[in-house]
Amino acid sequence: MHLTGNIIVGQSGGPTAVINASVAGVYAAGKESGAKVYGMVNGIQGFLKENILDLDEYLAEDEGIELLKRTPAAFLGTCRYKLPVPEGHEDIYEQIFAIMEKYDITTMLYIGGNDSMDTVKMLSDYALAQGKPHRFIGIPKTIDNDLPVTDHCPGFGSAAKYIAASLKEIIRDNEAYEGKTKLILVEIMGRHAGWLTGAAGLAKGEDCTGVDAIYLPERVFDIDAFVSKIQELAAKKSSVVIAVSEGVKLADGRFVSEFATESTDIDVFGHKQVAGSCATLADIVEKRTGIKARVIEPSLLQRAATHIASLTDINEAFVAGYAGVKAAVEAGRTGVMITLNRVSDTPYKCETAAFDIHAIANLEKMVPEHFISEDGCQITEEFLAYLRPLIQGELYPIFKNGLPAHLVRRK
Amino acid sequence: MHLTGNIIVGQSGGPTAVINASVAGVYAAGKESGAKVYGMVNGIQGFLKENILDLDEYLAEDEGIELLKRTPAAFLGTCRYKLPVPEGHEDIYEQIFAIMEKYDITTMLYIGGNDSMDTVKMLSDYALAQGKPHRFIGIPKTIDNDLPVTDHCPGFGSAAKYIAASLKEIIRDNEAYEGKTKLILVEIMGRHAGWLTGAAGLAKGEDCTGVDAIYLPERVFDIDAFVSKIQELAAKKSSVVIAVSEGVKLADGRFVSEFATESTDIDVFGHKQVAGSCATLADIVEKRTGIKARVIEPSLLQRAATHIASLTDINEAFVAGYAGVKAAVEAGRTGVMITLNRVSDTPYKCETAAFDIHAIANLEKMVPEHFISEDGCQITEEFLAYLRPLIQGELYPIFKNGLPAHLVRRK
Repeated sequence: MHLTGNIIVGQSGGPTAVINASVAGVYAAGKESGAKVYGMVNGIQGFLKENILDLDEYLAEDEGIELLKRTPAAFLGTCRYKLPVPEGHEDIYEQIFAIMEKYDITTMLYIGGNDSMDTVKMLSDYALAQGKPHRFIGIPKTIDNDLPVTDHCPGFGSAAKYIAASLKEIIRDNEAYEGKTKLILVEIMGRHAGWLTGAAGLAKGEDCTGVDAIYLPERVFDIDAFVSKIQELAAKKSSVVIAVSEGVKLADGRFVSEFATESTDIDVFGHKQVAGSCATLADIVEKRTGIKARVIEPSLLQRAATHIASLTDINEAFVAGYAGVKAAVEAGRTGVMITLNRVSDTPYKCETAAFDIHAIANLEKMVPEHFISEDGCQITEEFLAYLRPLIQGELYPIFKNGLPAHLVRRK
Repeated sequence: MHLTGNIIVGQSGGPTAVINASVAGVYAAGKESGAKVYGMVNGIQGFLKENILDLDEYLAEDEGIELLKRTPAAFLGTCRYKLPVPEGHEDIYEQIFAIMEKYDITTMLYIGGNDSMDTVKMLSDYALAQGKPHRFIGIPKTIDNDLPVTDHCPGFGSAAKYIAASLKEIIRDNEAYEGKTKLILVEIMGRHAGWLTGAAGLAKGEDCTGVDAIYLPERVFDIDAFVSKIQELAAKKSSVVIAVSEGVKLADGRFVSEFATESTDIDVFGHKQVAGSCATLADIVEKRTGIKARVIEPSLLQRAATHIASLTDINEAFVAGYAGVKAAVEAGRTGVMITLNRVSDTPYKCETAAFDIHAIANLEKMVPEHFISEDGCQITEEFLAYLRPLIQGELYPIFKNGLPAHLVRRK
């Protein structure tokens, strides 16, 4: 079986350091199959405005592909647009298929997380119901690492590497002093799942003492226990570095960052909008113990720091895109997401497969219980064994004028 | 003239990404001169407790030196201790000289910023007054780049490279979306001088639109003008990224981060302690315009991110340490700081010299007027020409287990 026709690739949701490597993988496989490979600008939202480009314009030369693999965020642009259900919105669906037919596009690859997979599901279901031959494939991408079925998600390994490398540097800096305790709270992305926060555990090694505690959103956050932990650590260490998820929640379901707004303990007007979990906790800790905390929020550098991306992650992102094209063009699949299936940890071996999108779209995978220590303040050796292979290897930036060079769209 | 006796090196004040390269330079020159080279742990404070080590233990093998050059912060540890004036504290001074004599140390190299140079000044003055032969040399180090006489300071180039590279990634991420304006405020270190904040201007290039505005502490910060600037930018751009110094000040001399505590506009109890200038400004902007800002505070990653250090900076830090030993041992100098004198921009050429410490200690060099644009929101081409050579070149980390490896002291 070999599907003819052209290919289009796009993405939606938050960027990652390696999302563009998946675009490169789609392009490579598409050219192999003899198709023209289009990119949609700003996801399905841009596609509806027929904002598409021919990737040959940028990637026909090897330098373009090498730069693309080293360019953070979304080269093609992204969107937050959620496709509505077909009922009552048939016009939108028909418009999508009309544009596909206009450019003789038979395969659409959509890179993203949970919401993006919902778009793939609805488009493939609609095509099947209407007897249309078009194929829709999902390519996983999220630093949150929370897509089900797949062992892990492209984008996560690079974010984990950035977090671990940065924490090693932060700890080294904080340990330069002796005397009075210096407390640092590092706020890590992941509103619901604690995969990336857990990656803070990777900092520990023969040349680093590691973070002193890790707080994941999978466990209820107890402010009193947190303050006690800080006091206990401060009594015996002059450097205390703690990783906290932006999404830690209290027993009543509120985010820690919302605590300030309702408490009489601290009354911070207008604080809710800007303060994260760590700024809130720093306030509380200082008020209750007198210990001042330095808050570090790398924020979106966690998903954008391609200059220290994981080569394993870049390669897997590429392979996921490549496999997506093969699944559609050679195996005739549609309504599936490419998954990464880990075969072994040592040596690390990982294969791709294609899995029914209905078991994936809109679902979230949390960090399992056995990956978190009993006291909830550290990760287990099993979690570390899961994480380590994902941060291996580097693809050095191409430096121009002292800075990593990126590939950009011409206007 | 050739001074015999051993050498000791130490440092005080905040760490930088390349401070250890200066230790490596001192070690290399010291070994060349046939001396034993000691390191003081935690600066002069540790020295007074005779907490010293023989650097041969760590640096005799080449791997040690290579790792040291790639290790952020202070390998030897640092301190905030300020040596008191000799009058009434002769015991402290005599103790220092007694320890030096015990280990046959005739030359002390002290790496640091303004305060550290004050220590060098007082020790060298005391030695001269007492007819002691010991020599004291200052090696410049500060990401703030605010030491006078020297063209720039080791540590600054690497921090500037980190800021510029990170801003390119932040801007790329923020431009991935179209539609509603996404505003990002990045808070940059430098409480008094705006050198590092100015380095945000380096992000602009053929593959990056650059930051939309830069606010240095050298200019009075006008909150109304800032809010207007945001509104003006938001009206025409969907991505707005602004760099703000942590040290921006209002016309009345208060730091912007202190504005919240006395204003009736926003009343943020306990806010002063944890919020920086950008968190305060984000509050104000949202309240007045409804535009939400994302605040990014890389904090001490700016001075610790050795993984993307500037090779030029590493080399100059090494050379400064090396020249310090030569100045003492071969030229018989004391009471001087090694300076970096720029000979030309293109090609970039820089030489070292030794300058009277009395003209340096306790003084700060601000960004000059002609480096700041007239409206105070950008830097000039002259500032860029000054900055560019300092971020050139890379010394790739030695990766072990997927993370940059560091050299650590054994307990």
